[in-house]
Amino acid sequence: MKNFIFHNPVKIIFGKDQISKIAQEIPANARVLMTYGKGSIFKNGVYDQVKQALAGIELHEFGGIEPNPRYETLMKAVEIIHQNKLTFILAVGGGSVIDGSKFIAAAALYNGDPWDFLSKDIKVKAALPLGSILTLPATGSEMNGNSVVTRESSRQKMAFSSPLVYPQFSVMDPQTTLSLPWVQTANGIADTWIHVTEQYLTYPQNAPLNDRLAEGILKTLIEEAQKVLEDPNNYETRANLMWCSTMALNGLLSTGVYTDWATHQIGHELTALHGLDHALTLTIIFPGLMRMMKIEKREKLLQYAERVWNITQGSDDEKIEAGIEMTDQLFRNLGLKTRLSEHQITKEDIQYITDRFNKNGPNKLGEKGLITPHTINSILLSRL
Amino acid sequence: MKNFIFHNPVKIIFGKDQISKIAQEIPANARVLMTYGKGSIFKNGVYDQVKQALAGIELHEFGGIEPNPRYETLMKAVEIIHQNKLTFILAVGGGSVIDGSKFIAAAALYNGDPWDFLSKDIKVKAALPLGSILTLPATGSEMNGNSVVTRESSRQKMAFSSPLVYPQFSVMDPQTTLSLPWVQTANGIADTWIHVTEQYLTYPQNAPLNDRLAEGILKTLIEEAQKVLEDPNNYETRANLMWCSTMALNGLLSTGVYTDWATHQIGHELTALHGLDHALTLTIIFPGLMRMMKIEKREKLLQYAERVWNITQGSDDEKIEAGIEMTDQLFRNLGLKTRLSEHQITKEDIQYITDRFNKNGPNKLGEKGLITPHTINSILLSRL
Repeated sequence: MKNFIFHNPVKIIFGKDQISKIAQEIPANARVLMTYGKGSIFKNGVYDQVKQALAGIELHEFGGIEPNPRYETLMKAVEIIHQNKLTFILAVGGGSVIDGSKFIAAAALYNGDPWDFLSKDIKVKAALPLGSILTLPATGSEMNGNSVVTRESSRQKMAFSSPLVYPQFSVMDPQTTLSLPWVQTANGIADTWIHVTEQYLTYPQNAPLNDRLAEGILKTLIEEAQKVLEDPNNYETRANLMWCSTMALNGLLSTGVYTDWATHQIGHELTALHGLDHALTLTIIFPGLMRMMKIEKREKLLQYAERVWNITQGSDDEKIEAGIEMTDQLFRNLGLKTRLSEHQITKEDIQYITDRFNKNGPNKLGEKGLITPHTINSILLSRL
Repeated sequence: MKNFIFHNPVKIIFGKDQISKIAQEIPANARVLMTYGKGSIFKNGVYDQVKQALAGIELHEFGGIEPNPRYETLMKAVEIIHQNKLTFILAVGGGSVIDGSKFIAAAALYNGDPWDFLSKDIKVKAALPLGSILTLPATGSEMNGNSVVTRESSRQKMAFSSPLVYPQFSVMDPQTTLSLPWVQTANGIADTWIHVTEQYLTYPQNAPLNDRLAEGILKTLIEEAQKVLEDPNNYETRANLMWCSTMALNGLLSTGVYTDWATHQIGHELTALHGLDHALTLTIIFPGLMRMMKIEKREKLLQYAERVWNITQGSDDEKIEAGIEMTDQLFRNLGLKTRLSEHQITKEDIQYITDRFNKNGPNKLGEKGLITPHTINSILLSRL
């Protein structure tokens, strides 16, 4: 186990009818920008609950933040903040709204082009305070300092992180997820899954508690995924899925260990260039990457097969393959595609992505930096 | 799952040679009281590391905090704080020092007898800021707002908790635990174990992730306990045990569920009246309480036997008994006693404890309030 710092000050307010509690969390003299996405908050009643909770507080609105939030859109919110001297951001929605709002919070107090945070790895030195109301469990953004933003003009999807953009609070009412379209529920489960495996499926690092926690989330996801398939209206199942998604990426699984994240980095290219849902890029790449790296990840892949999937029969190689295959099946059972050809992505597209990695980097991905553009090419070809 | 708030702002600084980092965490103009116990910090080098890290900062000292820290002792530290107008407490030691320092932090800013926090459940409204350097993994105090204090005059051991006494930071250097006497290592493992089971061994509450996390900590403890028995000088093993102890009681296992804590509450009487090590009270009571409550806790005890102890043979009753028995054996393998008679505690002593519960309460312990003084009597008699 390597040295680590764990510091996650987000206040999670979890459960039924908790949205009204935001009134106790936002200063009465705050000038608030409520950010949201495409408008689901009008249908599920969350918008009205926020308005009611914050009656008497100066409240501005900025809607229309896209899935894979765009730099160009977010900069418009920064303008509204400057024009109205706003002091607090309340992100209401899924991971894209929260990620985008983190960018807005940092950009609002930055002199310069805030794309620097992503493209030049410039550290955030100040950010507006931020709270969130999560309505789509998936990204874990409600309890971390990470943000992924897409720049439309250059078709780049990049990440930054800062302790200054942790939400001060996040309200999680599982009731808000009961009305999600199925694809968003399924995507959220897949996204959560891969967040865990990016931190878990590396190599033995003598961090047994991290391993057990990771396996615990995955085993819970297997059970709850089946339950939500059978009964999408069960509050308890939704609550369990929601809490899994938060725990998957709040920093606990990565304490003291080296992590992978190559599946995400390759996936971001598929979203930026072809518009695939984030989760669908992961379900495609995961099986290919695991098979390609099965020598380097051998011990952990075997542990994954045995402990997560309870595979006891066969040789080690057969167990590893079965574990990967069962993951692929889990995704397909949820209705998610796992092949590039299902999205009409071709060999030529793969070559273009490979060339982008060669040209722009990064060119050494994974927990040991062993995944080169050449490896990426092979992984993607295996997923046609 | 019931509604919950999770908010744990403690900054954990974990790893080799991290004590020097306290200089970045304590304000340069702070007037610091360093609190410690019986003096192990002089032998393991921690005292010198603190002095070096805080050179230039006004530093007062208060040593001699006992295991099961005493109200009477702690009030002397409060006096020193008042006399010298100190502004920050740095607790250096194990759970007793940190628990005691939390009490000092709250007592220093309270007008009245601070025993009120424990005996009258008066809420803490202000506390001095506090940081900790943990040298004995066991209580989890380094990452929570709990404190247990003993009042010598009335032989009472009681608890209070407050969000205001969370340490701002806790440094955890596993190297400091390499020199622990074996009994403290063993006690720490048992204490951690029971922290988990107090939250886990209740009844099915449809909180599967909590269950998996609890099982993950317990399974890790089984493995690491064996390793530390074989090689007490292994840094990695010590690091894993240390992180388990923190994770066992930082609030994650109790999110959304009702918890037990009867083993602790009964155990506190044994410590207050007979001076038993805290952990030894737990190792005695746990098997008895589980057997006594095995109808009420049936489903979870079976799950515990199957998932934690991998017991697959026998009837459900046999599995449950085997799970309890293996726990007893785990403790005995660590060299810990699990019987009252091994401490010369008699039937008469048990009657006295029962009478105290009858007179002073609480008289309904456990996750459902089903454990009465009569039950406590039976549990203790079963552990003679």
